[in-house]
Amino acid sequence: MKLNKIAITTGDILGVGEEITSKALKIINPDKDKIIIIGKNLNLGYETIEVDPKDNGEFCYNSLKIACNLANEGKIQGIVTAPVSKEALHKSGYNFNGQTEILEYFLGDKSNKAEMVFIENDLRVMLLTRHVALSDIKITKEMIIEKTIRFHDFLKNKCKIKNPRIALCALNPHAGENGILGDEEKLIINPAINELKLQNLDVEGAYSADALFLKVGKKYLSHQKQDYDGIISMYHDQGLCPVKALTGDNSVNTTIGLKVIRTSPPTGTAYDIKGKNIADPNGMVKAIELMLKLL
Amino acid sequence: MKLNKIAITTGDILGVGEEITSKALKIINPDKDKIIIIGKNLNLGYETIEVDPKDNGEFCYNSLKIACNLANEGKIQGIVTAPVSKEALHKSGYNFNGQTEILEYFLGDKSNKAEMVFIENDLRVMLLTRHVALSDIKITKEMIIEKTIRFHDFLKNKCKIKNPRIALCALNPHAGENGILGDEEKLIINPAINELKLQNLDVEGAYSADALFLKVGKKYLSHQKQDYDGIISMYHDQGLCPVKALTGDNSVNTTIGLKVIRTSPPTGTAYDIKGKNIADPNGMVKAIELMLKLL
Repeated sequence: MKLNKIAITTGDILGVGEEITSKALKIINPDKDKIIIIGKNLNLGYETIEVDPKDNGEFCYNSLKIACNLANEGKIQGIVTAPVSKEALHKSGYNFNGQTEILEYFLGDKSNKAEMVFIENDLRVMLLTRHVALSDIKITKEMIIEKTIRFHDFLKNKCKIKNPRIALCALNPHAGENGILGDEEKLIINPAINELKLQNLDVEGAYSADALFLKVGKKYLSHQKQDYDGIISMYHDQGLCPVKALTGDNSVNTTIGLKVIRTSPPTGTAYDIKGKNIADPNGMVKAIELMLKLL
Repeated sequence: MKLNKIAITTGDILGVGEEITSKALKIINPDKDKIIIIGKNLNLGYETIEVDPKDNGEFCYNSLKIACNLANEGKIQGIVTAPVSKEALHKSGYNFNGQTEILEYFLGDKSNKAEMVFIENDLRVMLLTRHVALSDIKITKEMIIEKTIRFHDFLKNKCKIKNPRIALCALNPHAGENGILGDEEKLIINPAINELKLQNLDVEGAYSADALFLKVGKKYLSHQKQDYDGIISMYHDQGLCPVKALTGDNSVNTTIGLKVIRTSPPTGTAYDIKGKNIADPNGMVKAIELMLKLL
């Protein structure tokens, strides 16, 4: 019998993770047997694995490690993470770029790699490249094929979309305007799309990103169904600027491609409002709700 | 006495320019002495300069040329352009990238250069670089200073904002994350901002573009005043993806920095619906209304 249990890490001790997790759980009130809290004890009656809080970075890292161990043992099927600070991790000697990288370290392998998807309802945007300098963005046909298939699998198996329709953004403005503004569309993206089509995937593009997001915005703002089940943007700002403009704090940062799915609110540790009981749990509510839906 | 007169070019003969201009003028009904129509005669009682329609590209080019001549003679103070197709221009031997470049050719000089700004109400986003391949994006301190001053002048003198507040996007994701994801923020953008501050301009940044557009979106969608009178994005998709996602067809493509201002709807020629009387004049209405407001 599949338990469909999720681990929730309470995040950075100095931030609002504990507060937003408590508030979110009170709002959602999920079944007690569905949740394991890792980190701080929230005293809400959920099964809890407490972690030694003496060193903040150590605490964050160990909380994630415990969650990953449970995932590797098959005891949980998803991880929801409250925010941590990269600085806290680095101070304690864990030179990861963020939680995603720690999760990839423990839950990934040659064929399981972390992909970042931002989700609100049927708006799902995956980033092809993530945290690289603009001048270091390099895309390849193989990379597009591999990552699109990973996204397709997620849409099909987790979002339960029978035949997912995916649109790819162009890399260059105006989709390269027939090669005048760059040739990656002609040489890399369109050939990748053609290969994916031969594999019977419903993949379209490469579309001018601004024109594509104009359509996305119109559907989103008029509460209509999106034309595409998933959109792949070629780089960080191309995808996240329109997604965050439209969805604000409502989109859930979702890590797919690993042994289990991970969701996370888009907000940070918010050290400045710790202990004031004014932190908005909305992002955490969305992250837990999405996880419960995906399982 | 300043007449504050505007020229409206009716655009591509094969497109919907004539239709949306007619519809827009009927909706707005501006004073007869404020408008000169250039191109096709709309028979609406406005002063009109008809252009020979035998060759479409020639027609488009000549319409703009006449508008520019009137501007150079001081007879008009603004130009509103209905859409033309680049292909039509090229076919007739005019190898310009678009109308903006034709206007810059006739109305620009060493110190007057065209800048592209997208405007809806108090949301105003200028592009630092426009139609270049992603891998060709190059920014310099001098360029940022020059263009920011041009934007500032527009906000002050045309939008009548006493002390315009401008935010600059970073070039790299997470504003370069202290140099880990690119050093243009440290080496180029921030030094430019510091120089602009020394000139008493209220300029801030470089901000993570996605975080900045999250704030922009929140204000926009809740109909609150924007925090910044103007935002400068470093490149095409970084600025236009969020702007078009939020504003759809409601933002006006505005050319500043030249002898006169030019506004234009964000839509294209729409050859496919020519003559069906179903073209939406909304973009043209916004373009004319904004022009009347700016004059």
